[in-house]
Amino acid sequence: MTAEWSDIQLSENERLDDLLCSGRHIIQNTQEFCFSIDAVLLAHYPKLKKSWRVFDLGTGTGVMPLLIADQVKEIHAIELNPVMAELARKNVELNKLEHKITIRQGDYRRIRELYPPESFDCVIVNPPYRPVQHGQLNNLSGVAAARHEITATLSDVVKAARYLLRFHGRLCMVHLPERLGEIIVAMHENQMEIKRLQLVQPKPGKASNLMLLEGVVGAAPGGMKAEVPLVVHEADGSYTDAIKKIYNM
Amino acid sequence: MTAEWSDIQLSENERLDDLLCSGRHIIQNTQEFCFSIDAVLLAHYPKLKKSWRVFDLGTGTGVMPLLIADQVKEIHAIELNPVMAELARKNVELNKLEHKITIRQGDYRRIRELYPPESFDCVIVNPPYRPVQHGQLNNLSGVAAARHEITATLSDVVKAARYLLRFHGRLCMVHLPERLGEIIVAMHENQMEIKRLQLVQPKPGKASNLMLLEGVVGAAPGGMKAEVPLVVHEADGSYTDAIKKIYNM
Repeated sequence: MTAEWSDIQLSENERLDDLLCSGRHIIQNTQEFCFSIDAVLLAHYPKLKKSWRVFDLGTGTGVMPLLIADQVKEIHAIELNPVMAELARKNVELNKLEHKITIRQGDYRRIRELYPPESFDCVIVNPPYRPVQHGQLNNLSGVAAARHEITATLSDVVKAARYLLRFHGRLCMVHLPERLGEIIVAMHENQMEIKRLQLVQPKPGKASNLMLLEGVVGAAPGGMKAEVPLVVHEADGSYTDAIKKIYNM
Repeated sequence: MTAEWSDIQLSENERLDDLLCSGRHIIQNTQEFCFSIDAVLLAHYPKLKKSWRVFDLGTGTGVMPLLIADQVKEIHAIELNPVMAELARKNVELNKLEHKITIRQGDYRRIRELYPPESFDCVIVNPPYRPVQHGQLNNLSGVAAARHEITATLSDVVKAARYLLRFHGRLCMVHLPERLGEIIVAMHENQMEIKRLQLVQPKPGKASNLMLLEGVVGAAPGGMKAEVPLVVHEADGSYTDAIKKIYNM
């Protein structure tokens, strides 16, 4: 950590993490949802272009914008939770990326009131994974909202993405494989077709517990690429080379 | 090959293959579509029950019914190509399975005229993989129909399966991963949801070129299991243990 970063005053429940990416750091609130490998894998999934305007739906503390900032022209992000949105803004400032990243506190179910239509090249989203009726809710309400579809359903996510994306724009998502059918149907109902799917396996020979996928607006059906599955750990528990590369280890 | 099998008189263009399954053999016509690993993998994919009535949509020379006959109560199969349907019937007789397997020559786009509705527990199908506009058509017209959607589209396949299946009946299919989105949407439009997906990789670290999947009639969306990918060859070209097990090698 540079002297500059070590000087930062953290509030109660805050911690500072090194993103291992262009020297960037992120402050997270340990009482709120902290980003995990899912966000890092998703940040590396889209084939970004320097000219692109990217949107992050439900950015949390802004981890994905911080990770992809060097590869695109501009990033807009929205976050419902005011504590997280404020932290995301603080993280953008600390990393001196105000010229590229704009954070807004708001609800993406009302996206039409907040942004012009079809104005982004790519939308990334690490949405809540489980419907409300599944699994135990976390006692910390912000964490529960980030993990469960309390504040937005899969359909809300896909609709918001479709509104923001231009023709042939891409929606990249990380999610549980168990929701694949619902995601593909929701995309299809919103003029998007799946074009890439990468299953993530915790270890070789283990069933996938996570997936990355890309839908394209206005594309013809068919032509999906099933990519080589991404394996996180070797049989001995160490990280695979693919993961080390993503983490710059 | 037993003396019995070696006595069989083959017609021109016919060949006799050992199915490595309960001593069964199959006659194939080398001028028509011959089954490949796809059919064998699909035959092993459904979790069959002894009490089940199973339907094979487009059975070719009857390979899948021959492979699963010991595991179920009854199998009905339809085949459009008269040469193949006749060969399938001959194969059923040669293997003495007339009490279990019934082959009919016919068009599954007219399934409603041929079978009662919702009367099967499981439908298996190894359909034509490519829309007509894609890829070069094989000069042998029967082979072209088996590989391309000349006589039936994906939508025809899924509609016929839905008609045949009881509530909570299963549709098991082998197909190209590039068609995954279309299959899931077609299933959803016909009251089926995907519940299992297994990608097939030619070698470790290679992208999937085949997939097996299962849809269930009347199921709630969600809950799909992304199974451990099935790898066909080791890096050195030999078959993996998983494939040897399927082939009884």
